[in-house]
Amino acid sequence: MTVTDHDPTSFPVSGRNRLRRLHTRGSFDRAAVYAVLDAAMLCHVAYAIDGQPYCTPTLHWREGDRLYWHGSSASRMLRHLAGGTPACLTVSHLDGLVLARSGFNHSANYRSAMCFGTARILDDPDEKAAALRAVVDRLYPDRTASLRTVTAQEIKATMVIGMDIEEASAKVRAAGVGDDEEDYAHPVWAGVIPVKTVLGAAEPCVRLDAGIGFPPDLASFAPG
Amino acid sequence: MTVTDHDPTSFPVSGRNRLRRLHTRGSFDRAAVYAVLDAAMLCHVAYAIDGQPYCTPTLHWREGDRLYWHGSSASRMLRHLAGGTPACLTVSHLDGLVLARSGFNHSANYRSAMCFGTARILDDPDEKAAALRAVVDRLYPDRTASLRTVTAQEIKATMVIGMDIEEASAKVRAAGVGDDEEDYAHPVWAGVIPVKTVLGAAEPCVRLDAGIGFPPDLASFAPG
Ligand SMILES: Cc1cc2nc3c(=O)[nH]c(=O)nc-3n(C[C@H](O)[C@H](O)[C@H](O)COP(=O)(O)OP(=O)(O)OC[C@H]3O[C@@H](n4cnc5c(N)ncnc54)[C@H](O)[C@@H]3O)c2cc1C
Ligand SMILES: Cc1cc2nc3c(=O)[nH]c(=O)nc-3n(C[C@H](O)[C@H](O)[C@H](O)COP(=O)(O)OP(=O)(O)OC[C@H]3O[C@@H](n4cnc5c(N)ncnc54)[C@H](O)[C@@H]3O)c2cc1C
Ligand code: HEM
Ligand code: HEM
Repeated sequence: MTVTDHDPTSFPVSGRNRLRRLHTRGSFDRAAVYAVLDAAMLCHVAYAIDGQPYCTPTLHWREGDRLYWHGSSASRMLRHLAGGTPACLTVSHLDGLVLARSGFNHSANYRSAMCFGTARILDDPDEKAAALRAVVDRLYPDRTASLRTVTAQEIKATMVIGMDIEEASAKVRAAGVGDDEEDYAHPVWAGVIPVKTVLGAAEPCVRLDAGIGFPPDLASFAPG
Repeated sequence: MTVTDHDPTSFPVSGRNRLRRLHTRGSFDRAAVYAVLDAAMLCHVAYAIDGQPYCTPTLHWREGDRLYWHGSSASRMLRHLAGGTPACLTVSHLDGLVLARSGFNHSANYRSAMCFGTARILDDPDEKAAALRAVVDRLYPDRTASLRTVTAQEIKATMVIGMDIEEASAKVRAAGVGDDEEDYAHPVWAGVIPVKTVLGAAEPCVRLDAGIGFPPDLASFAPG
């Protein structure tokens, strides 16, 4: 695997992450990869156990070139990854349905990022404690301070995985219908149907004290 | 791997798909797995090439216990899978953010399905032709009939993968906040913020003949 020279704004390129199909939609630019990763909470992690591939959905967060995810200290996925195992973490957004005048030119608008690296357990206690604050606070700014304090037992029950991104790529389609020139006259509806993820109205816990309103810190979680 | 006795309403259970973590959220029921698969267009496929795991986003469709996906005949993923390769196809829906009174009890509402099988190329010409109609018509009922006819060159350029589901599992969380009993009095907002995927208003192709309106067949693609 030949890795190209290092350019700080781009991830290195090797046989793993070089785009072959429709490569003009691709990019190795750090900013492009970060933008796709940070716009989602949900990722899918691929790993293999005894040659059997698994694709597990989980929540991720990022600091610089490091990706994190968490779960039970007894989790099969996490225990397997903890030892230093190759993994691929992918984030995808479906942004639109593209209806063309031929079947072949149907497509989807999307943004996706595939990240390659070696997953490792975070076993330094300070690093782990910081990560367990980050899992909450990166999603809900400053929320940890207002919560019931985490217990030693909870920290023990939890595993955090960190993976330095060795190579990554982003791929994006954000365009209208691309039909063959001779097909534009074909009499069928063609266009793009946008797909969006939106938040609904918050549903307070049935046991919430009536005096506690929705926190201003969570203003970015307003419906829409 | 011990596979349990066959029950037609359930997928067989082995070491691959037996849920260990929070297994009460899991199910091997065919109907439960189908419901998660069919509610999404986008899946993630895990496979390994030379021991390196990849997680590739793609569109899937299902007929009975068979999953399909498609792309270029030159695609690295598809060429690798065509030969009969173990894969895991996962579909996930993020349905809500669960904000608890402790960090530990934060969670997400979700529906997901993980399907295991051996991917194979569809090389029978009739089967392939049927699949290339199905990729369009399962998403957009009866649309193929109104499109410019597919060419032999397009069929040649396209590969369709079929994978019979050998084992599968669904896992679902659809509940309110689950706090520790002694934490309900902790004075912080707690509740669920729903997350939904919605369609936007259709954007006709800029070259669409002004006389062609949005087809009634696509009524289920109205905004919302
Ligand atoms: C919502 C969505 C729907 C899609 N639907 C389809 C479909 O139905 N059919 C289809 O053929 N393709 C689909 N794609 C694109 C698909 O993810 C692959 O890009 C494509 O199948 C080519 O795969 P390949 O392995 O041949 O790519 P190659 O170009 O050979 O892959 C080499 C490397 O390029 C990079 N790369 C490839 N794809 C991506 C990606 N999506 N994001 C980031 N990096 C990438 C990775 O580093 C990968 O290891 C979809 C993508 C998204 C996000
Ligand atoms: C939107 C979303 C967000 C999630 N966020 C997190 C998170 O942040 N942390 C976390 O620990 N987990 C999260 N999960 C759950 C995660 O997918 C796993 O279920 C969990 O991590 C346990 O993994 P495991 O390998 O230890 O499970 P095990 O129970 O050991 O897995 C064994 C088998 O059970 C089945 N199985 C496991 N998980 C699933 C699943 N999700 N869907 C269908 N079948 C399954 C599979 O067949 C798998 O091979 C999330 C799931 C979704 C859909
Ligand atoms: C509603 C139906 C369809 C949808 C939504 C759809 C969607 C897609 C998407 C999203 C891609 C990925 C493009 C990318 O990598 O950026 C793709 C690739 C491809 N599709 Fe389809 N498609 C459909 C029908 C078809 C049909 C009917 C054919 C063939 C007759 C076809 C042939 C191909 C081929 C060959 C590729 C690979 C392109 C490449 O990598 O060069 N598609 N499709
Ligand atoms: C906003 C912050 C958080 C979110 C959104 C979140 C979300 C989740 C989700 C969705 C799961 C999967 C549950 C399932 O499999 O159904 C999970 C598992 C888990 N989380 Fe978190 N979590 C957060 C914070 C934390 C913190 C701070 C801790 C520890 C202090 C923690 C410890 C765990 C553990 C131990 C599991 C595994 C449960 C099991 O498999 O038994 N989480 N989390």
